[in-house]
Amino acid sequence: MSSIDQVGIQIALTQARKSFNEGGIPIGCSLISVNGAILGAGHNQRIQKSSPTLHGEIAALEDAGRLKAGVYRDAMIYTTLSPCSMCTGAILLYKIPRVVIGENKTFSMGGEDLLRSHGVEVVVLDNEECKKLMAKFISEKPGEWNEDIGE
Amino acid sequence: MSSIDQVGIQIALTQARKSFNEGGIPIGCSLISVNGAILGAGHNQRIQKSSPTLHGEIAALEDAGRLKAGVYRDAMIYTTLSPCSMCTGAILLYKIPRVVIGENKTFSMGGEDLLRSHGVEVVVLDNEECKKLMAKFISEKPGEWNEDIGE
Ligand SMILES: [Ca+2]
Ligand SMILES: [Ca+2]
Ligand SMILES: [Zn+2]
Ligand SMILES: [Zn+2]
Repeated sequence: MSSIDQVGIQIALTQARKSFNEGGIPIGCSLISVNGAILGAGHNQRIQKSSPTLHGEIAALEDAGRLKAGVYRDAMIYTTLSPCSMCTGAILLYKIPRVVIGENKTFSMGGEDLLRSHGVEVVVLDNEECKKLMAKFISEKPGEWNEDIGE
Repeated sequence: MSSIDQVGIQIALTQARKSFNEGGIPIGCSLISVNGAILGAGHNQRIQKSSPTLHGEIAALEDAGRLKAGVYRDAMIYTTLSPCSMCTGAILLYKIPRVVIGENKTFSMGGEDLLRSHGVEVVVLDNEECKKLMAKFISEKPGEWNEDIGE
């Protein structure tokens, strides 16, 4: 893994841990420029902000704020969990060319295939801590998790 | 058009007009239960809140707040403009079964086809006021509009 990838996934994991420690859904995300600049980071805010749309990816995009189209096209998204259809659509909207995913065992809505079909590079790390955080959260709060994925 | 559809699109249009009058992108949305209850409404907040993700649909879902899965499955989205990939993905995430679109001449990212392929009912009204508001905004602020659609 490149050093930029290591930084990107570590920021995402730090956000996921922070959310877990707040009692929230432990999914974190970072938006990193291809040259390594940290553009934004965030975590799921369903529980903390009663938000149905601030998934990790959306929260990271919000943290980054308004950016010119070219900035997204030179950026990468790091997310601890495979993106849902909304977050997949956000990545396609802004034409972010590369997505690094901590794990896709806990959840996958088919976003990876849709991203690849649009030419996005998708890397799945199968990271143990990403899986453990989710397993712990889901065993403690299954209702909140189902709500987050529309189930 | 049913009376619920009339109410739904009028709330979306009222939101779009409000955003236009604030100097913002004139796209509005409402989330309405199939029995006619108004669950939420909102408009694009790129300019007003410097937000890259609060499109009309996302703002309406945020306004509705946390809902159980069954509420979304008995709800309809009314939006003044054809949904982008992010908002299309949000509709699919929450399995909202019906989407009424004011117009799709100004913009379409293929969201309607993706929705239909997942069994969502899509109705396009070709509403003149929806088109006029967008035409006026885009002629005045083309840069902000391009930014909103990742161009
Ligand atoms: Ca912001
Ligand atoms: Ca809220
Ligand atoms: Zn998501
Ligand atoms: Zn949108």
